[in-house]
Amino acid sequence: MALPAEFHEIAERVNNWGRWGADDETGTLNLITDEVVRAAAAEVRTGRRIPLALPLKEDGVQAGLIPGRTNPLHTMVQINQELFGPGTVACSDDAVTMGLQAGTHWDALTHVSHSGRIYNGRPADSITAHGRAAFSGIDKAAPVVSRGVLLDVARAKGLDRLPGGHAVTPEDLAEAEEYGGVSVRAGDVVLVRTGQIQVYLAGDRNGYGFPSPGLSVRTPEWFHARDVAAVANDTLTFEVFPPEIENLWLPVHALHLVEMGMHQGQNWNLEALSTACAETSRYAFLLAAVPEPFVGAVGAPVAPVAVL
Amino acid sequence: MALPAEFHEIAERVNNWGRWGADDETGTLNLITDEVVRAAAAEVRTGRRIPLALPLKEDGVQAGLIPGRTNPLHTMVQINQELFGPGTVACSDDAVTMGLQAGTHWDALTHVSHSGRIYNGRPADSITAHGRAAFSGIDKAAPVVSRGVLLDVARAKGLDRLPGGHAVTPEDLAEAEEYGGVSVRAGDVVLVRTGQIQVYLAGDRNGYGFPSPGLSVRTPEWFHARDVAAVANDTLTFEVFPPEIENLWLPVHALHLVEMGMHQGQNWNLEALSTACAETSRYAFLLAAVPEPFVGAVGAPVAPVAVL
Amino acid sequence: MALPAEFHEIAERVNNWGRWGADDETGTLNLITDEVVRAAAAEVRTGRRIPLALPLKEDGVQAGLIPGRTNPLHTMVQINQELFGPGTVACSDDAVTMGLQAGTHWDALTHVSHSGRIYNGRPADSITAHGRAAFSGIDKAAPVVSRGVLLDVARAKGLDRLPGGHAVTPEDLAEAEEYGGVSVRAGDVVLVRTGQIQVYLAGDRNGYGFPSPGLSVRTPEWFHARDVAAVANDTLTFEVFPPEIENLWLPVHALHLVEMGMHQGQNWNLEALSTACAETSRYAFLLAAVPEPFVGAVGAPVAPVAVL
Amino acid sequence: MALPAEFHEIAERVNNWGRWGADDETGTLNLITDEVVRAAAAEVRTGRRIPLALPLKEDGVQAGLIPGRTNPLHTMVQINQELFGPGTVACSDDAVTMGLQAGTHWDALTHVSHSGRIYNGRPADSITAHGRAAFSGIDKAAPVVSRGVLLDVARAKGLDRLPGGHAVTPEDLAEAEEYGGVSVRAGDVVLVRTGQIQVYLAGDRNGYGFPSPGLSVRTPEWFHARDVAAVANDTLTFEVFPPEIENLWLPVHALHLVEMGMHQGQNWNLEALSTACAETSRYAFLLAAVPEPFVGAVGAPVAPVAVL
Repeated sequence: MALPAEFHEIAERVNNWGRWGADDETGTLNLITDEVVRAAAAEVRTGRRIPLALPLKEDGVQAGLIPGRTNPLHTMVQINQELFGPGTVACSDDAVTMGLQAGTHWDALTHVSHSGRIYNGRPADSITAHGRAAFSGIDKAAPVVSRGVLLDVARAKGLDRLPGGHAVTPEDLAEAEEYGGVSVRAGDVVLVRTGQIQVYLAGDRNGYGFPSPGLSVRTPEWFHARDVAAVANDTLTFEVFPPEIENLWLPVHALHLVEMGMHQGQNWNLEALSTACAETSRYAFLLAAVPEPFVGAVGAPVAPVAVL
Repeated sequence: MALPAEFHEIAERVNNWGRWGADDETGTLNLITDEVVRAAAAEVRTGRRIPLALPLKEDGVQAGLIPGRTNPLHTMVQINQELFGPGTVACSDDAVTMGLQAGTHWDALTHVSHSGRIYNGRPADSITAHGRAAFSGIDKAAPVVSRGVLLDVARAKGLDRLPGGHAVTPEDLAEAEEYGGVSVRAGDVVLVRTGQIQVYLAGDRNGYGFPSPGLSVRTPEWFHARDVAAVANDTLTFEVFPPEIENLWLPVHALHLVEMGMHQGQNWNLEALSTACAETSRYAFLLAAVPEPFVGAVGAPVAPVAVL
Repeated sequence: MALPAEFHEIAERVNNWGRWGADDETGTLNLITDEVVRAAAAEVRTGRRIPLALPLKEDGVQAGLIPGRTNPLHTMVQINQELFGPGTVACSDDAVTMGLQAGTHWDALTHVSHSGRIYNGRPADSITAHGRAAFSGIDKAAPVVSRGVLLDVARAKGLDRLPGGHAVTPEDLAEAEEYGGVSVRAGDVVLVRTGQIQVYLAGDRNGYGFPSPGLSVRTPEWFHARDVAAVANDTLTFEVFPPEIENLWLPVHALHLVEMGMHQGQNWNLEALSTACAETSRYAFLLAAVPEPFVGAVGAPVAPVAVL
Repeated sequence: MALPAEFHEIAERVNNWGRWGADDETGTLNLITDEVVRAAAAEVRTGRRIPLALPLKEDGVQAGLIPGRTNPLHTMVQINQELFGPGTVACSDDAVTMGLQAGTHWDALTHVSHSGRIYNGRPADSITAHGRAAFSGIDKAAPVVSRGVLLDVARAKGLDRLPGGHAVTPEDLAEAEEYGGVSVRAGDVVLVRTGQIQVYLAGDRNGYGFPSPGLSVRTPEWFHARDVAAVANDTLTFEVFPPEIENLWLPVHALHLVEMGMHQGQNWNLEALSTACAETSRYAFLLAAVPEPFVGAVGAPVAPVAVL
């Protein structure tokens, strides 16, 4: 069952292979230039910091549907241990086991492949078992600090959250852009708010994952036209689920990660940011969102922060 | 074997218990005000970003000396798996097990206790086995974005790195401050460079840990007087090892974490930052260093970035 | 809320503290003498081996109700890796993270404490965070090879399985003993079949755990009178759940593990054994069930086998 | 670099593909018939039980040389937790992360492949990332209870242990057989003692692994001729290391696992067994060594016990 012609047509239009050289492993994060970062810093007005990561805990967002993607098992290895004798300073230490994409995370460009290829045309089998993507592991991502733009699609439509299964279209993105009085520019990291994470925050982990609003297969071209550096949202699936086209699963993943070389973020909590942006009517800010640099990893946790 | 009188005298002078209220769990990170953050953003001149985290990998800095603090074991749970049928988009997923303080990290205020107490006078036994500090877990840290200041003690002395066992004194810090033409201010995150991480980078994990230069027991008063928000350096032990006073182990940990409520960072790679600051003769910058928010954790990995 | 007088009265009658010396860490497994083992070997008639462990897998019996007791996360670290060059012999290697009591397991004597004490009167706080029971860790269990006796309570009552919440009484045990034509003797390992594991095998993990048939608080005296070496059954909770006496949780655990020093096994699959014993009308056999010797562990997986 | 002709010639002579049917996943463990098991039980004379597993702990045999094969990280998730309220029975629970072949273990038939094939001619790529050998995972091993025979090669030669790099030959095995007054028979599990584990027990983990005595490439034919069910020894590498033939790595693994379908055991502690057999001049016994049934695993821990 090959991917449909429609997919390949879009892929051709958004493909970035070779754009930053045959050796590039970083993709659209190359668009974050020093100039972009300076402009991002200039967006800071109040100094207010808003964290966007979900707490990492055993009852996190994973409901067991994605094999091997386990919520953090957080355990203790020392508790108030007087390592140097009775009455001395006592130490506590802990450890964790988790799926690298279990919580708020970035997908590495290697998280998906199609037709045997990953970003920049490299062979998919360059990913091997010992936790190792030979190319475009998450450690190859540039340090993600840039201008962040919130496209608050739900709020722009006057909704608390988009209904499950709503495909966020380019028109929706443009509507949110206009609502926010902001223009998406080259090098921006775009945060698309659907409000779906409220379902998880209310305790319904299964409902959070499915059905889910998310990006339409038509949005990669919109991001491509604006030279966006990266996109994140507040869902488990990132793209709309179930998918828009029968039997075409994860097309947005394949277009962003493989064709464009654009990193994606999932499970970002954009609720407090939404409120703050609405209060100030400003939808651009400084965003710092550097993934944990696991060598060769196909994804990594991140603790993003918006500075308004 | 009780802690010596000398320790308790310093402790009394730097103690911050109750300063931000009896319920406070955040400590000196309260000193990062919105005003401080605005000033931090204003430090950005070139837009150059310098990541400060070590790559996370199985042959990381841990050499097996600290029980249970294990380097990342990074494993695959899916490799190019065509979850939705042959020829479809294929997924790769990975997982990790690691000590939360194995790599570049922040100590939570609960990482050490003494005399049965943690920061703000709470009982040490509020830390229990299921990965849980009831108070002052790392998830209680404010999002760390502030002005960063590099005190390049090694470079100020004309050395590549300080010798093993060198105790960094308040005089050393003042010397580096003057060398950098910068004044440490309230709310700053201070990065103290010893150059010790070169030992690890050269492949000697045992030599990296011991003997190690690090902070003297006299430095907490210096940080306290300047109302520093947090301190990080480029060593495994943070403070000088072996210790300056016989049988007084980890006094700096106890003074910073328990008495002052000041978070500490270890294993930060400050080499590239040192070069960049020297080139521009500017030692202040925007620093983003938000710890991964593991609920109740006594430490957490962080991927800090300096923006110059 | 102290434990009720009724509990303490039974405890006094079954207590084995000091019976095998003040230093003993093994408890009733001391009752497996060489003579008992010889007699066990003599029970082998057909040579048929029946494994009693559940398969270890990510969708195992744990449904998330017991914090930190996670099903196995089984991951690959090498797949057909030609470590010594192209065309050479290729290696595959794997790793696991799991709760030690997640599947078919033995409780160590340290799995529970009450009134601040563990077996043989030692202090409960001898269990510390670095995976370490200083006394009576599972590695202190004698190698469990003995005569096994199946008390097929469900079959003796003509039932496929006991109803949820059925408390297995001493009378039920005696009935099953008579049904099987077998007499429980000193040093035996007794397997009590309720049939409850069928609920899990049918795919209902939540129903498997609750409500559950299991041992009554009155059974420890029965086992004590017969000098049984250990007891295992085919439930998650081992004892009846919800409990028989309001607000008296896990009394059987406390009596067996703390008072008697008798190891307990849970999640044993006794279905095939039940059929085999019924076919041959013989309910005694050689049982080998050596726990994995994790040092200081409070429980461990076991792969028991009955040889008929 | 293809495998040499010499390897392929031996492979042809010992190959068992198809012997137990095209669908077989169990290999030579099929040779353990009920009759063999009955005879094994009849070997029990004294009832003495000797455990053969190394304790599982963080400072186990792995010295970091085999990527991803990590010693057990044993952590606590509950310590004396009064889950049901103050004064109630308190629970302790623990968890582990480990390489499945880190300690005393069985290799599954899928642990190695060569020329793209595993046992019974199946494709090597039937092993995939989510901890899954589709065929011949360790859960497909028959429950290993059989007659065990100790071939005490070191003692037969009057040595404490064989020198590092000694290749145990068929002649050595025959010598030990004669020394023990025992004849290896079809269905036996043969334990070959080199004494090498003393190096680990004395604290030298690196020396334990290399150089190591171990089986010669000539021994598979000896085991094949006798229809041995499985072989285990007291080394990390199983076969002699460095190898006998330049650039031919792991030939014994490939012959046993791939060609013969014979499970191998490593890191078995045969020291106490050696003493006991010498005392009684009996080298055959009942052996129970059922691997933990991890589904699709390429290896698994085992806690073997010999009953004399």
